Amino acid sequence: MKNLEENLKEDLKFLKIIDKTKTILRMNKLIDVDQREDIAQHSFHIALMAMVLEDYSDYKIDINKVVKMLLIHDLVEIYSGDTFAYDEEAKKGQRERELKAAEKVFSINEKGKYFRELWDEFEECKSPEAIFANGIDRVQPILQNYYNNGGIWVDENITIEQVMDRIDIVKKSSKKLYELLLNIIDEGKRKGWLKD
Amino acid sequence: MKNLEENLKEDLKFLKIIDKTKTILRMNKLIDVDQREDIAQHSFHIALMAMVLEDYSDYKIDINKVVKMLLIHDLVEIYSGDTFAYDEEAKKGQRERELKAAEKVFSINEKGKYFRELWDEFEECKSPEAIFANGIDRVQPILQNYYNNGGIWVDENITIEQVMDRIDIVKKSSKKLYELLLNIIDEGKRKGWLKD
Repeated sequence: MKNLEENLKEDLKFLKIIDKTKTILRMNKLIDVDQREDIAQHSFHIALMAMVLEDYSDYKIDINKVVKMLLIHDLVEIYSGDTFAYDEEAKKGQRERELKAAEKVFSINEKGKYFRELWDEFEECKSPEAIFANGIDRVQPILQNYYNNGGIWVDENITIEQVMDRIDIVKKSSKKLYELLLNIIDEGKRKGWLKD
Repeated sequence: MKNLEENLKEDLKFLKIIDKTKTILRMNKLIDVDQREDIAQHSFHIALMAMVLEDYSDYKIDINKVVKMLLIHDLVEIYSGDTFAYDEEAKKGQRERELKAAEKVFSINEKGKYFRELWDEFEECKSPEAIFANGIDRVQPILQNYYNNGGIWVDENITIEQVMDRIDIVKKSSKKLYELLLNIIDEGKRKGWLKD
């Protein structure tokens, strides 16, 4: 058991490192703004999104756990960087890179162990909370692309099939949100934002 | 009672508006980066900070409530803008501006009502959770300025007295964190970052 001073020192080191999330950029852009989103902004948005959309979960979930899970879910990217969801080449080795990063970022006191457990649960995607959290993580970029007239779907020539693959997990947690996404994809198809 | 479709429509409208938090800038800069922090990044950072530092609270707190409170505490700034904590002129009328903004931003269904209650609790600063949350909101910029060799303390000629006033609330929730801040302020004084 570490003493209070050592613990506080490690806590502060961790909280300083977390500042880096504000400079790690995702592919997606902010709504109506020509600026890529960073992982701090993304994590903030989906934590709130989970709070707002929790009632659409088909299963009983502990929303507090979901919120915490979403706040820490991308911290590994401080060391591994963001991997674009539709870049199959970049995704090779992603799991290994992120596991290595997890060792590093969560290597603080008892808090780190707790965060690591939450991250493992999110990654394994088996508990109702992890399934809902992963779903919300997929819903957000789709809404961004929708509000951005196709956004990176257009820029990166994304196909309907690719997006359908990504949202499969949403079906497992919320029929209502899945239906919403199907409607958006349908509109994206009609408007030519998504390729066949 | 609104039906599901109406509710979802309002939820989505709210979640779209929230994207604006990513473009509303605070005075403080990121650590070691010449870039001002936005309120999404700030809210993300302090929500995690509360999770990491909860054990230093002198009172029993519901950390889940603290996290949610911190995630929504600055949403009013979407309409009122950020008010620099050390700008006495700008702070005149701040409460009125923010109350008006709260009416607007939280005017969605039942979720909005719940967020408004959380925001009122944070603002009134009477419950142990609200006192701790307000404290964390003060701790974060002090750490940023410390890691940035004085940061905006230097840029804006901030005095020790001004910072001492700001951290008074921390004393009410955590002796340990208050002690940490006193040490930082002392160092800031010795290094000439803070004026007498």
